[in-house]
Amino acid sequence: MKKTLGTMALLGAFGAVTGAHAQSSVTIYGTLDAGIAKISGTTAQITKRDNNKLGFRGVEDLGNGLKALFQLEVRFEPDTGTVEAGSRPLFQGQSRVGLQGGFGTIRLGRGLTAYQEASVAFEPWNGLPTVSPSSTGGSIGPGFQPDLHVAGYTSDPLGPAGNSRNRFSNAVFYNSPLFNGFQVNLTVGAKEANGNAALIGRGTALAPQYPANSVPSAAPYSLSATYNNGRFGALAAYERNAVETDVWAVAASYKPTADLKLMASYQKQDQSHTMAANAETKAWVLGANYTVGAGKVLLGYGQKTPDAMPHTKQASVGYEHSLSPRTYVYADLSNRKSPPVANQTILRSYTFYGVGVHHNF
Amino acid sequence: MKKTLGTMALLGAFGAVTGAHAQSSVTIYGTLDAGIAKISGTTAQITKRDNNKLGFRGVEDLGNGLKALFQLEVRFEPDTGTVEAGSRPLFQGQSRVGLQGGFGTIRLGRGLTAYQEASVAFEPWNGLPTVSPSSTGGSIGPGFQPDLHVAGYTSDPLGPAGNSRNRFSNAVFYNSPLFNGFQVNLTVGAKEANGNAALIGRGTALAPQYPANSVPSAAPYSLSATYNNGRFGALAAYERNAVETDVWAVAASYKPTADLKLMASYQKQDQSHTMAANAETKAWVLGANYTVGAGKVLLGYGQKTPDAMPHTKQASVGYEHSLSPRTYVYADLSNRKSPPVANQTILRSYTFYGVGVHHNF
Amino acid sequence: MKKTLGTMALLGAFGAVTGAHAQSSVTIYGTLDAGIAKISGTTAQITKRDNNKLGFRGVEDLGNGLKALFQLEVRFEPDTGTVEAGSRPLFQGQSRVGLQGGFGTIRLGRGLTAYQEASVAFEPWNGLPTVSPSSTGGSIGPGFQPDLHVAGYTSDPLGPAGNSRNRFSNAVFYNSPLFNGFQVNLTVGAKEANGNAALIGRGTALAPQYPANSVPSAAPYSLSATYNNGRFGALAAYERNAVETDVWAVAASYKPTADLKLMASYQKQDQSHTMAANAETKAWVLGANYTVGAGKVLLGYGQKTPDAMPHTKQASVGYEHSLSPRTYVYADLSNRKSPPVANQTILRSYTFYGVGVHHNF
Repeated sequence: MKKTLGTMALLGAFGAVTGAHAQSSVTIYGTLDAGIAKISGTTAQITKRDNNKLGFRGVEDLGNGLKALFQLEVRFEPDTGTVEAGSRPLFQGQSRVGLQGGFGTIRLGRGLTAYQEASVAFEPWNGLPTVSPSSTGGSIGPGFQPDLHVAGYTSDPLGPAGNSRNRFSNAVFYNSPLFNGFQVNLTVGAKEANGNAALIGRGTALAPQYPANSVPSAAPYSLSATYNNGRFGALAAYERNAVETDVWAVAASYKPTADLKLMASYQKQDQSHTMAANAETKAWVLGANYTVGAGKVLLGYGQKTPDAMPHTKQASVGYEHSLSPRTYVYADLSNRKSPPVANQTILRSYTFYGVGVHHNF
Repeated sequence: MKKTLGTMALLGAFGAVTGAHAQSSVTIYGTLDAGIAKISGTTAQITKRDNNKLGFRGVEDLGNGLKALFQLEVRFEPDTGTVEAGSRPLFQGQSRVGLQGGFGTIRLGRGLTAYQEASVAFEPWNGLPTVSPSSTGGSIGPGFQPDLHVAGYTSDPLGPAGNSRNRFSNAVFYNSPLFNGFQVNLTVGAKEANGNAALIGRGTALAPQYPANSVPSAAPYSLSATYNNGRFGALAAYERNAVETDVWAVAASYKPTADLKLMASYQKQDQSHTMAANAETKAWVLGANYTVGAGKVLLGYGQKTPDAMPHTKQASVGYEHSLSPRTYVYADLSNRKSPPVANQTILRSYTFYGVGVHHNF
Repeated sequence: MKKTLGTMALLGAFGAVTGAHAQSSVTIYGTLDAGIAKISGTTAQITKRDNNKLGFRGVEDLGNGLKALFQLEVRFEPDTGTVEAGSRPLFQGQSRVGLQGGFGTIRLGRGLTAYQEASVAFEPWNGLPTVSPSSTGGSIGPGFQPDLHVAGYTSDPLGPAGNSRNRFSNAVFYNSPLFNGFQVNLTVGAKEANGNAALIGRGTALAPQYPANSVPSAAPYSLSATYNNGRFGALAAYERNAVETDVWAVAASYKPTADLKLMASYQKQDQSHTMAANAETKAWVLGANYTVGAGKVLLGYGQKTPDAMPHTKQASVGYEHSLSPRTYVYADLSNRKSPPVANQTILRSYTFYGVGVHHNF
């Protein structure tokens, strides 16, 4: 069925809804995570720890080892029922379609970049949000991912206001097959304008380096190489975004026993294409996950060191208690010393407390 | 599966979409209700009588009598295909996750308050919209719920523009177990700003009592106690919202025979925290539902009496004819005498006629 | 279950989610189509060829030949994950509910008009988008449908900004049964305002013929009659929109062999209600589809001739290669000579190249 059938086929089309194309080809999945959290000096909020999702995906076997894949993922705020951050795309999580075969997987659309997707395996909260003093409830949590763990880098500086920081729209995504634990992943974005606000950069307010709704000055791309033999994992990754800021990272994980996973990463961002001074940021994060019965202890510590600016430091401890393979409750405690938005030359200390429930379906 | 797996697991993750976490854990449900309605003095419109929904929900048995629950409910306008009222949250109906056990049910997120959820059982149209002279087609109907049946009260005065009037965002929801027909329900909201427009209240235009994006001046909460033995039902409920307006209600229902349900309610709102004068509104609603074969007759009459203002009066009669347990057609006639927005000192009479189809899936 | 049950029924309601109303009554379906395309003089983009959809639909057998039907269809942009064109209704595709029986099918809500729905069977790309020099990536493709194939006509001139051009909101949709291959279809819209921007028409900027948020000056309606005996198909259709522009079309298709379908159409638009001069537009489109093994060749040529304006001309050739009944890859080449928006008195030539993948689920 290639398209909405003409009216003449209408009766027939409705009669066929239980037919061969129906239902069985779509899997619905998702995550609901909600809790109560408080940052020192602010009121307790209903918030989330993980990203909340409602997704639709499917795989079609085309024969000869070839498969067609699609995935659409709504992201939302559980406390208000809006799409994520109130204005993000409906399918903020991803919207991709592609083919998989002996050559690997190739997909088109929007999703996490090769760098961002591969790096979460080396972050002790597995990519959950950073502690933020924001009073919006949008994104507060004990994790290191959207900030320290990528050295403050954003993958989408020319996205519309409120966009997420780790995805490419208008992109081609390639993942190689696994070769003895090795995999290579590449994401390339098109030079399409996407409704950004003006970005002053090395320009002026009247003549910004990237005016509103700019086309990227170079095609953004992202490259990661990963290795995993079950016990030892490693990552090398490089990405350059639409305003020619780049970032690279190396990371490793090691499991001395099946219950314990140790992680370390180092990353460096270079914003010299848009910043005349203090354009480099380095960061490192250390972490551990320790499983004990139905419990899991998470530990992490990291620093971010922008040129000639105060060093952000964050330490987090968390505990997850599984009620089933799909559901757990959690508690976290985190301290972060970072410069407030209003004054980037000083450090302020935020302490975060949170408890909640995480449910996959 | 705790989070988007790293890239290395990608091939495996796609291979597993028919696995244990899939599909079976999600129920899709919903309601489509559309009809043709006319209010005297206006043009006929394509409209709705009930709220239109598309929902996703699931229950996971955790063992030992414990369950995990989630529910996400899109609400939309059937005549234009937009989300409800054009700008409400994607999951306007609800977005909640929680646990259920011997202690009752506890959930976090957004949903109907304890007061609003319990009160619909005592309203003859079971919570369907009030007749409104609005020309938007948004919410016109024969019911008493969002206005008379709650004495004009709104649960969410600091929500964003266009919000619904009977829900809390950023809240904890508790329902006790049933004890011999008795149940207690409590909803408590966090003191979080949620993007409200300025509310002048007892302030001035320059210094509104609640400026834009205010935090609640007190944590909003809602409490209801219900009893139902099949034949007799009763409700006592109290709620205080984010601007310290409160409302209480008592209601009862009685079934002299299995076919007939009689209902009565009394409710009183006090807005003295934000109004210097005429701050009280009382309302009562009487109703009956009579089932005869595949048909059901609905009758209702109510009054709302704001201090020193004209008394709104509404009388409605409706008929529903079941085509199946999931589908019925309906016809309604209603008359409402209420002050128009432009002049709150007079009464105007609106007569409403409507027919349509209601389909659950 | 007529409505959200009162709180007392909450435990019961959650217990029943695997019950009779669940899941089996809803079919999830959709299309993901993404590719890489380029228009001469612009940068290559990630784009789509077909409309992308995620839909929910169901049929309930009511007995005695009567059925209840519903359909909700999300439309989205695969390259950015937003709803279609960034601001269209969530259920842009359609939101309709109705009944089907010996009398035909009657539905209420939003959807393609009788004219637009019937005409795609006579367009060689089966209704896929026209080539457009837009840099938004929104709607570029080799097809003739939203422009030449309807003589530039729009079904919804009083829709909100960014609306689609081939649907009615607030409408009743009737399709007759098939009588020996004949079918009659009628769509009638209500006279409801729907948030349009001002339309100057025969007025002035200060006194536009249709001010913002106008009610239609006459009820819009659409009528089509179709015939199909498998080998020969024919269409006659007429539609008048909310600003009293009308269009009519005749079209025919013929299959000399099972592999070859030939198509021709002629259509004429009259905008004299809102244009003082040059109010008529005529257009014709010729096309062929030729199936050869897993391949399908598409050919089309058409012209659009507005009064006293340059004639738009478009020629397209395409190829689809099926990987399965649900998935194909495609390549298209198209040339279009049309006046640019900035200067309607000249013609400019655009050449379009595109490849991609199309997957139904």
